[in-house]
Amino acid sequence: MAKKTPQAYLDLKETSATIHTYNSILSLLHWDQETFMPPGGIIPRSEQIALLSSQIHDMKTSRKYRGQLEKLITPSTGKIKIKGLSIREKAAVREWGKEFQRSSSLPSSFVNKFSKLTSEASQRWQIAREENNFKLFAPSLSKILDMTREKAAIYGYDDHPYDALLSGYEPCMTSAKVRKIFTPLAKELTHLLARIREKPVINDRFLRGAFDGKKQTELGHALLAKLPIDPAYSRLDLSAHPFSVALHPHDSRITTRILSDGFMSNILSVLHEAGHSMYEMGLPTEEWGTPLAEAVSLSIHESQSRWWETLIGRSLPYWKHFYPEVQKTYPAKLGKVPLDKFYRAINKVTPSLIRVEADEVTYCLHVILRFEIETALVSGDLQVQDLPDAWRAKMKELLGVEPKTDSEGCLQDIHWSLGDFGYFPTYALGNLFAAHFFSAFSKEHRNWDKRVAKGDLGFIREWLKVNIHSFGKQYNSEQLAKRVTGEPFSEKAYCSYLKKKYQEIYEL
Amino acid sequence: MAKKTPQAYLDLKETSATIHTYNSILSLLHWDQETFMPPGGIIPRSEQIALLSSQIHDMKTSRKYRGQLEKLITPSTGKIKIKGLSIREKAAVREWGKEFQRSSSLPSSFVNKFSKLTSEASQRWQIAREENNFKLFAPSLSKILDMTREKAAIYGYDDHPYDALLSGYEPCMTSAKVRKIFTPLAKELTHLLARIREKPVINDRFLRGAFDGKKQTELGHALLAKLPIDPAYSRLDLSAHPFSVALHPHDSRITTRILSDGFMSNILSVLHEAGHSMYEMGLPTEEWGTPLAEAVSLSIHESQSRWWETLIGRSLPYWKHFYPEVQKTYPAKLGKVPLDKFYRAINKVTPSLIRVEADEVTYCLHVILRFEIETALVSGDLQVQDLPDAWRAKMKELLGVEPKTDSEGCLQDIHWSLGDFGYFPTYALGNLFAAHFFSAFSKEHRNWDKRVAKGDLGFIREWLKVNIHSFGKQYNSEQLAKRVTGEPFSEKAYCSYLKKKYQEIYEL
Repeated sequence: MAKKTPQAYLDLKETSATIHTYNSILSLLHWDQETFMPPGGIIPRSEQIALLSSQIHDMKTSRKYRGQLEKLITPSTGKIKIKGLSIREKAAVREWGKEFQRSSSLPSSFVNKFSKLTSEASQRWQIAREENNFKLFAPSLSKILDMTREKAAIYGYDDHPYDALLSGYEPCMTSAKVRKIFTPLAKELTHLLARIREKPVINDRFLRGAFDGKKQTELGHALLAKLPIDPAYSRLDLSAHPFSVALHPHDSRITTRILSDGFMSNILSVLHEAGHSMYEMGLPTEEWGTPLAEAVSLSIHESQSRWWETLIGRSLPYWKHFYPEVQKTYPAKLGKVPLDKFYRAINKVTPSLIRVEADEVTYCLHVILRFEIETALVSGDLQVQDLPDAWRAKMKELLGVEPKTDSEGCLQDIHWSLGDFGYFPTYALGNLFAAHFFSAFSKEHRNWDKRVAKGDLGFIREWLKVNIHSFGKQYNSEQLAKRVTGEPFSEKAYCSYLKKKYQEIYEL
Repeated sequence: MAKKTPQAYLDLKETSATIHTYNSILSLLHWDQETFMPPGGIIPRSEQIALLSSQIHDMKTSRKYRGQLEKLITPSTGKIKIKGLSIREKAAVREWGKEFQRSSSLPSSFVNKFSKLTSEASQRWQIAREENNFKLFAPSLSKILDMTREKAAIYGYDDHPYDALLSGYEPCMTSAKVRKIFTPLAKELTHLLARIREKPVINDRFLRGAFDGKKQTELGHALLAKLPIDPAYSRLDLSAHPFSVALHPHDSRITTRILSDGFMSNILSVLHEAGHSMYEMGLPTEEWGTPLAEAVSLSIHESQSRWWETLIGRSLPYWKHFYPEVQKTYPAKLGKVPLDKFYRAINKVTPSLIRVEADEVTYCLHVILRFEIETALVSGDLQVQDLPDAWRAKMKELLGVEPKTDSEGCLQDIHWSLGDFGYFPTYALGNLFAAHFFSAFSKEHRNWDKRVAKGDLGFIREWLKVNIHSFGKQYNSEQLAKRVTGEPFSEKAYCSYLKKKYQEIYEL
């Protein structure tokens, strides 16, 4: 007989669902701002967002919320106080407790000061990048780093202040664990890259040139229509930067962007954002409002987007299925380009200066560089004034290229100006988790490639839903990785995947 | 030297602005629901709307809000307590007090019961209309009328319970005042209609037939682009029923709908909704949060939409300007139709069974019928069971046509099922106020027709802004009407306008 859920749990679930509902409204405000809002709406929109954000903060730190939570758990120790919870409910309570502990540890005065600082810093960063003048941004970055160290001290850590920051995005990781993964990964990737660079450059000229915007938009919709996503629960629009946002598992929205000089960016963006979206849609609606209907972490979220963008979206079987549609759209440009040539072109490896849209081999090297630099900045081993040189040296070491300007060097990402230290590693970890999961998936579905080549994609989403999405935050990333594959999480699956794929493509 | 605004006023303004900001978010939720929301989003959307609505209700009835208000005014008597307010600030305080008095007079239990009743009733009404079965809806309507009488008693009234309801939509009107206007109006309109019916039927065949949806959408945008509206502050989309919503004077959104068998509905909808939108955009942003940045009443709002839809949008000068664009869009259908023939066709008078999209001569007769019936229902002079017969008799008397079914008779409007008694008169009053204002406008701009014929429309909006929009709720409808024209508000300007226009069109 099923046990009755304790009332205290149901009470907290209800309050938490209200907070989630406010959050979903906030998501709509952001979505609208990036898609359809008339430009003049920006000032009232800022007011609306500030109002809801403070409303949410007030609710999460309210006496009512704390009181309901403390009936279930002592947040500071994580000790569950109440009997009769199921295993899943216990996991939910544990996550509620952790989140409360973290979000209530920073004083409001600190949060407000940091928010003002980063708001000003991101404006300065923008000007500094436009004018290629690192010195304009350096004082802001120093202040952000001071406050970031202060933040880490408030959160607390055992080993390295960076750990306190990283765990905000990927709770089960520490800088030591990440280093243990990134060190062999860097070695493998630089080695693979060196071998590739000995080979002739792949011809991908046919991917460039002028591609009509309207046709690109239609192609994006056609691609989405063939993905296993219910159109009643989703939509696709355009925005300056692609993103995905889920108001609820039944209302998920993605955007893409159209570049006039190439069509692959749009296609890969739709696949990437659809991957994020499928994760949100796969969370159990009956748990809405609890951590059991929330994503595990940014890394796992990224694993789902990279799964569809790279493991599927840059695979040969996928293009056996979808290439004819693309050829039909651009007959003059691609009509005579055979599939294998196209496949090699979209997987061409080119060390570049910019992380965004880097190929699969060099992508993680961009992230490793940032990880090494930001851990040194946070610990104080690297001074802000030395950042541009450090960046250039690392680029040379890892990717063999060197930026001529700071704008395409250490000023290229917005993250630090927003105070988001500890965020970057999740971009690489996402790829690694994806490959790790994929190793189990491809064992279970040995003929996955044949099915995908026929356009059958639903079984993939089903597998992800059963093995990953449906658990919400019940397991942390490492537990989930172990549970799905039987193996502890590491860089190995990703390295094997890359080696096998690029050996074929580059005939290494 | 300008006086300093009392702090108590600024405090209430700030709280009120917060409530307005929540309301603007609520408006976005509604807009999104009707335009872009994936259909599956409806259940979370209902939760979002219910949450924000109750949040707004709580704030408006909070001790804080009442406390701030009562420093300025005694809401029950309307007596202003504080010195040093400007004339405009006094008007704002008076309106805040009236709104508080009204919204706090209904007990929450009553509001909740009425809300449940109307939610069920509107579903029943929909089925009853689909199945043409008035009896399915009658019991709900009886209950709504019982509660509506109760509501009127709570609000209080001097003469007729209907007055307490009407004043929720048009504060300065009573049923006696409306009757004093509607009685001569009905006489004039039925007389004019009788004379028109003696004349040959106007040929408008070329307005009907298949009109491509995409071209219609483009035409709607082209029309909007030529209106004096800043595109940075507005946008146009499609929805099942046209509407307009302003999140703020700088973020105003309108929708239209495309019918496949005619294009004029789209055009008139864009003009109508743009009229509403220009009103909202013309409210003074510096007063945002106060009644000085709110529309006077539903009647005055409707006067602005009907101004652009009918006084301008069905005028010969406007079509001298815009007809070539329409001919260019539909050359096969309209290329050979001369302007005067087109102008007569879009102004053809045809008594029909349905209020929506009725011509200018019969439109108000539809409203007068509803006013007479709903005052009798509220007073109890008309029983619910006798409503279908009463409707048929009134239609025959006023319009000379009789519905064969109740679906196209007394079941055609949703309003009563939502408990909106007292709303209908504002549809007619809007036309009357528009014509009343227009009499002053056309005296001031004697060459308005020549300017409009050249596509010059900005001076019209400017005139409306200066004379109407910029005051917000500083004056009530009657005061505004008197202020703008020097004449007390009546039906006379509208009757003169119609007689002059239709004498020419029908050569009476």
